[in-house]
Amino acid sequence: MFDIRRRLVAEALGTAVLVTTVVGSGIMGDRLSDDTAISLLGNTIPTGAILVVLITILGPLSGAHFNPVVTLVFALRREITASGSIGYVFAQIGGGVLGTWIAHLMFDLPVLQLSETVRSGMSQWTAEAVATFGLVFTILAGVRFRGDAVPWLVGLYITAAYWFTSSTSFANPAVAIARSLTNTFSGIRPIDVPGFAAAEVVGALLALALTGWLLADQSLPSKIQINPKGAE
Amino acid sequence: MFDIRRRLVAEALGTAVLVTTVVGSGIMGDRLSDDTAISLLGNTIPTGAILVVLITILGPLSGAHFNPVVTLVFALRREITASGSIGYVFAQIGGGVLGTWIAHLMFDLPVLQLSETVRSGMSQWTAEAVATFGLVFTILAGVRFRGDAVPWLVGLYITAAYWFTSSTSFANPAVAIARSLTNTFSGIRPIDVPGFAAAEVVGALLALALTGWLLADQSLPSKIQINPKGAE
Amino acid sequence: MFDIRRRLVAEALGTAVLVTTVVGSGIMGDRLSDDTAISLLGNTIPTGAILVVLITILGPLSGAHFNPVVTLVFALRREITASGSIGYVFAQIGGGVLGTWIAHLMFDLPVLQLSETVRSGMSQWTAEAVATFGLVFTILAGVRFRGDAVPWLVGLYITAAYWFTSSTSFANPAVAIARSLTNTFSGIRPIDVPGFAAAEVVGALLALALTGWLLADQSLPSKIQINPKGAE
Amino acid sequence: MFDIRRRLVAEALGTAVLVTTVVGSGIMGDRLSDDTAISLLGNTIPTGAILVVLITILGPLSGAHFNPVVTLVFALRREITASGSIGYVFAQIGGGVLGTWIAHLMFDLPVLQLSETVRSGMSQWTAEAVATFGLVFTILAGVRFRGDAVPWLVGLYITAAYWFTSSTSFANPAVAIARSLTNTFSGIRPIDVPGFAAAEVVGALLALALTGWLLADQSLPSKIQINPKGAE
Repeated sequence: MFDIRRRLVAEALGTAVLVTTVVGSGIMGDRLSDDTAISLLGNTIPTGAILVVLITILGPLSGAHFNPVVTLVFALRREITASGSIGYVFAQIGGGVLGTWIAHLMFDLPVLQLSETVRSGMSQWTAEAVATFGLVFTILAGVRFRGDAVPWLVGLYITAAYWFTSSTSFANPAVAIARSLTNTFSGIRPIDVPGFAAAEVVGALLALALTGWLLADQSLPSKIQINPKGAE
Repeated sequence: MFDIRRRLVAEALGTAVLVTTVVGSGIMGDRLSDDTAISLLGNTIPTGAILVVLITILGPLSGAHFNPVVTLVFALRREITASGSIGYVFAQIGGGVLGTWIAHLMFDLPVLQLSETVRSGMSQWTAEAVATFGLVFTILAGVRFRGDAVPWLVGLYITAAYWFTSSTSFANPAVAIARSLTNTFSGIRPIDVPGFAAAEVVGALLALALTGWLLADQSLPSKIQINPKGAE
Repeated sequence: MFDIRRRLVAEALGTAVLVTTVVGSGIMGDRLSDDTAISLLGNTIPTGAILVVLITILGPLSGAHFNPVVTLVFALRREITASGSIGYVFAQIGGGVLGTWIAHLMFDLPVLQLSETVRSGMSQWTAEAVATFGLVFTILAGVRFRGDAVPWLVGLYITAAYWFTSSTSFANPAVAIARSLTNTFSGIRPIDVPGFAAAEVVGALLALALTGWLLADQSLPSKIQINPKGAE
Repeated sequence: MFDIRRRLVAEALGTAVLVTTVVGSGIMGDRLSDDTAISLLGNTIPTGAILVVLITILGPLSGAHFNPVVTLVFALRREITASGSIGYVFAQIGGGVLGTWIAHLMFDLPVLQLSETVRSGMSQWTAEAVATFGLVFTILAGVRFRGDAVPWLVGLYITAAYWFTSSTSFANPAVAIARSLTNTFSGIRPIDVPGFAAAEVVGALLALALTGWLLADQSLPSKIQINPKGAE
């Protein structure tokens, strides 16, 4: 185990790099193309890729949450203490905001901005609840059956969710706060952040409840077995 | 082993998320671009990605069929009972339909729709037979030689098959039914579903027959060996 | 070990599916987009993906050569007999031609065609020699150090080589013959095939010679070690 | 261990292929599309892919640095001797220049060129420092926790960094020198190379310092553990 200072630095650093990737690649894709689907592709592929990297290299330090609802779920499962989880959330928010500002510095934009992109309404909130349900389900089932594959699972899940949700799957309140501070491709109006965060909490709690039943109290296969015979 | 209720929920959930991804990313790609190839790319990458995720995390529960012809093949191989396989198919169809509706909710579209996209004719049916032959062959050979790699193999196979078949490779009757209920990018007219399903069954049975001979009755290498010497 | 009939079927089947993917995704990408780079992307991603699949699932049967110059290299290394290698090459060519025709059937095109796409000249031949050098080097070094990773290495190498060579990296005489029989995106004039094949042989022999020295006669690390200490 | 001649050849070969990929795919993407984001995608995917390949197959020979700042960092950690590191850097620069020229030959361009692409200014230098910080951090933490995953981590990190930095993440002085010799998509004016190299050294040293504290002197988990309980 690493001490709490190192774990908090890992959470802040990881969330910072994640947000720099989301915001920076959004700016890059938007500047270089008139086709929004191409910009979104240029936003998606880097985000999925960096998640695999960050969770692999920072997971052994802090667990690589980078996300307050993930920390909330592990707190409810009593796998992180209440005080630890509060520290995690502050580190995630602080790191995320820093990540936005670093992206602005690199792209020669004013550091301090507020987004004007409207992201609100029932369909967007449904999308965020679905996206976060899927993310938390992926993490909890991945941890249960294939702990070593979790970095890939999360990276691939978010790659998909950018496209199958109408909201492009924020699924992360700390990232949403950080993205409210950039008036670029990936931004969200500050006033729309609470709606997103609420929907994300709902999705996360639904996933926690479902996995509590679905994955509970049965013999655990140590490896994935599509077909017990064939796997020999 | 997980009990039958959990296995059926896993099949329904997995097929739902798969269809939500196919339909949702189709809508997203279509809305954001005038270039159909880019829309298809935005449909392909999420579909391949989510398959890796879903088969990894739900495989230990239900085997992660998500597909009536896959269930049929395992029933013919007597690796699932007749009653179990009927339950699986209903769960797949129900989950798939739910997946379409969730996509509509997220993209603010009428929930109940019927597709008007014509997908019929000998070349399309040939494509579906080829696509499903390849999918079932990939699964059966993957299970035989590299059970742990099956999630990746299926995700990568479908990524390829979206582009090398003229039908974009449905290869799944439950998904075809679900896609008949959306009049968006990935839809198929309800009247065209039986032709697709029949072609898919033909392709699956061909793969079952070929693998029955090709992979049978010989000493099984425990690992892939491109070159027995080099692998040491 | 599988018997020679099964190995030949595996070579024919693998080369057929590989060519169907190359030709089919080329047609799909070309039809759907006016931007040639997008068509090439829609040609590249499926080709890389299917290579990972085919080498994983057919490698245990035949070694998954799918390529006469790969078979030549293994014959020169005395890892396949002369008669076996001749059988492999015929199976590869036959399978490849079949693959082109299946693609034509699926896309409702005349089955029998001849390409009119000029691919000739010193820069193209240089590209083919470079591409095949890299492919054979990747296979031989991969087999030496990480046999289990070879499917991924080849898929990723070809993904890159489609773009870093001016010829889009055929790197395979059997595939070149098969592609001479389609007058679509991925075609090559029959008269240009011998030049490509000769350049490919040159590249393969250079890789064989270099690896013979570079990888020879030294203690073999059983795993990749970027940093012996850090890897523990 | 391989002897120093083979290690230097591995460094030169690896850097050559890396640069051929960067420069060649840049030319291909630029020629085929009017959309700069698509050109960059056609530049990014091959670069990420070839890095996974090269680090996997050459890592066992030389450690697969391909980058003077990586060699510098390992020299400061006393994991390579001073004389060895000087040899490495010359091999990297020589290989890189050769890589540019091979790309020119393949694309029928004058071999000897100088770039006229301006890449300078504080935002660009910030981007290079950030990019190289992330690259070196990824390598050092990857080596510490998951040595076998380093090829994937570096390939994915660079895939992301091409898009999240305004400079498209050179992060490598040898590659920067090589790219100053091509007046194509991926070029950089020779006069701008020192600024990039200086920023890259700064980023690398910051990563070395941070990891020295963050990863030091604590019990080392042998595997990634997102959640110690769940991983069983």
